[in-house]
Amino acid sequence: MNDVLKWYEKAGECGDVVYSTRVRLARNLRQYPFPNRASESQKQEIETKIRDAILAGNSVAASQFSFVPLEILSDEGAVSLVERHIVSPEFIADRRNKALLLSDDESTSIMINEEDHLRIQVMKEGLSLKEAAEAADRWDTLLGETLDFAFDPDFGYLTQCPTNLGTGMRASVMLHLPALAESGAMSRISANLSKLGLTLRGSYGEGSQVTGAMYQLSNQITLGLSETEAIDNLSAIAVQLIEQERKARKELSGGIVLQDKIERAAGVLKSAKMLSSGEFAELLSYIRLGLSVGLLQGVTQEELNGLFVRMQPATLSVSAEKPLETTERDILRAKETRRICAKLTEA
Amino acid sequence: MNDVLKWYEKAGECGDVVYSTRVRLARNLRQYPFPNRASESQKQEIETKIRDAILAGNSVAASQFSFVPLEILSDEGAVSLVERHIVSPEFIADRRNKALLLSDDESTSIMINEEDHLRIQVMKEGLSLKEAAEAADRWDTLLGETLDFAFDPDFGYLTQCPTNLGTGMRASVMLHLPALAESGAMSRISANLSKLGLTLRGSYGEGSQVTGAMYQLSNQITLGLSETEAIDNLSAIAVQLIEQERKARKELSGGIVLQDKIERAAGVLKSAKMLSSGEFAELLSYIRLGLSVGLLQGVTQEELNGLFVRMQPATLSVSAEKPLETTERDILRAKETRRICAKLTEA
Repeated sequence: MNDVLKWYEKAGECGDVVYSTRVRLARNLRQYPFPNRASESQKQEIETKIRDAILAGNSVAASQFSFVPLEILSDEGAVSLVERHIVSPEFIADRRNKALLLSDDESTSIMINEEDHLRIQVMKEGLSLKEAAEAADRWDTLLGETLDFAFDPDFGYLTQCPTNLGTGMRASVMLHLPALAESGAMSRISANLSKLGLTLRGSYGEGSQVTGAMYQLSNQITLGLSETEAIDNLSAIAVQLIEQERKARKELSGGIVLQDKIERAAGVLKSAKMLSSGEFAELLSYIRLGLSVGLLQGVTQEELNGLFVRMQPATLSVSAEKPLETTERDILRAKETRRICAKLTEA
Repeated sequence: MNDVLKWYEKAGECGDVVYSTRVRLARNLRQYPFPNRASESQKQEIETKIRDAILAGNSVAASQFSFVPLEILSDEGAVSLVERHIVSPEFIADRRNKALLLSDDESTSIMINEEDHLRIQVMKEGLSLKEAAEAADRWDTLLGETLDFAFDPDFGYLTQCPTNLGTGMRASVMLHLPALAESGAMSRISANLSKLGLTLRGSYGEGSQVTGAMYQLSNQITLGLSETEAIDNLSAIAVQLIEQERKARKELSGGIVLQDKIERAAGVLKSAKMLSSGEFAELLSYIRLGLSVGLLQGVTQEELNGLFVRMQPATLSVSAEKPLETTERDILRAKETRRICAKLTEA
């Protein structure tokens, strides 16, 4: 890690509810088989071609990106990439012949030899679907200047998994919905969304648990719909959810039950000597909520975002530059959390 | 309540472990049947005789005591007496023909027409068995000047229940044993004590639950043993338990697990907007422990003792001068607790 301000340390649109926006494009090189059928040497060629498309020459891109062969990473280093949503959990399961191109602010990552030859991912703070999609498109265009992407006039971009055929685009927003969750509305909302071709999941995508009321809302349909249509559709639904969450917060925040939970969460985060990652996520959720409804003050949502990322288990080990036992991590997490949360006061 | 400093607001011997000492004497008037067989008019006569023995004339005692016929009390007022350990739970179950003589500092109470005609009770801060027994004896002597107590040369003082025959004395110390409880040693200790004729119970005596690691250690034998022997015996055992508890605290207090519990307890008490009486007792137990092992500072054990008494459910209602719902009490308890605990800091 370096000193460039990370994307999650900046304030974003609708930052009271939206943690982040992500757009990723799946692309493959026409002349090679998909990674699951490619030979080692083919994967090596693919890796070199994609790397050179970004890093060769004196382009602006070249100065912003680092190239990381996954095999050189420690286990903690690899898991930390997942924790920071830079790569998918699947990407690090087997690290042979895989590599990553990562921008200094961690907002743009290009996974090489994941399920597809390349996956371009752009993350942005707050609600920023249009901007993220435009940024992803710019990288797509730049890469397309030197790489020959597999494209079919009927099916669009070809991908290993048919669910990605077409635009190859998956867009998502990470939403913090504690008030809707508290009100018990989530299962109804989730059912309605799936009728609209959208999915609501835990914060690490498919199959992941919801912790700290963080939900990932994403599009499911990539075929028969333009990129712009998909983005507009997702955006409109996200705005509706944001409004519902804000309304639910207003209704709940007058009550002593929620005030009690928020103040207690602050009390524990200010004083605990050990914090598990699960408890940390749950309590931080109440702090975010407390700040957004004006019951707490003194810390910004961006400070919490940074704290949240830094306190993830493997990311803590990476910072400590050694593998850590659970208890060591829980102690470090509590210490740094106390430092940040000491500034929290009742508003 | 009035402005005299209450006994529990004073610092006592071994106050780090011993909350209070209590000695009570059971006595009956020779010329009347025990309360369970006495008529209403006989009970009325008994009440008058005992009241006059204290309040008649211009004695020092008369100026220190209030006479409280139980029938004039509200339900909250009656329960508050139990919460403050001034009377037994049984005493207020049926309040007809019962009365109480209570000293201004609440340390001395005389229950009239409880199980026996009178029960003289003296409470003191900290470990103070000898002093409490002497004080009880002084009241016994004073009352004996005008009252004719039922006494048998073989059986000693006669009491309704044969388990009180002899000295009629029951002595107890209220011990805070969080470290021994945490170490899992309590059931072994309790079994050993009963072999020595002593009992370890919850803080409201027989059948009561242990909350906040408060235990009542009391003598069981009243016959064939002098008052002094019983007091010395209880005292010696109490001192041993105190030493064991202090040793256990020293062993535990270096560990991060206990530090975490103590700091979290402080964090919650400083910030909660609602506190049930059970949670309050459990958390306060950690604060007492934290102060005694030097992990916390800023509040005295006596302040906590006073807070603990004032925050009992019925006592809160009495202070508010109206019956309170559970939620109202929990809010008031949290508010006053926040005020006192705001001064707590990590040592």
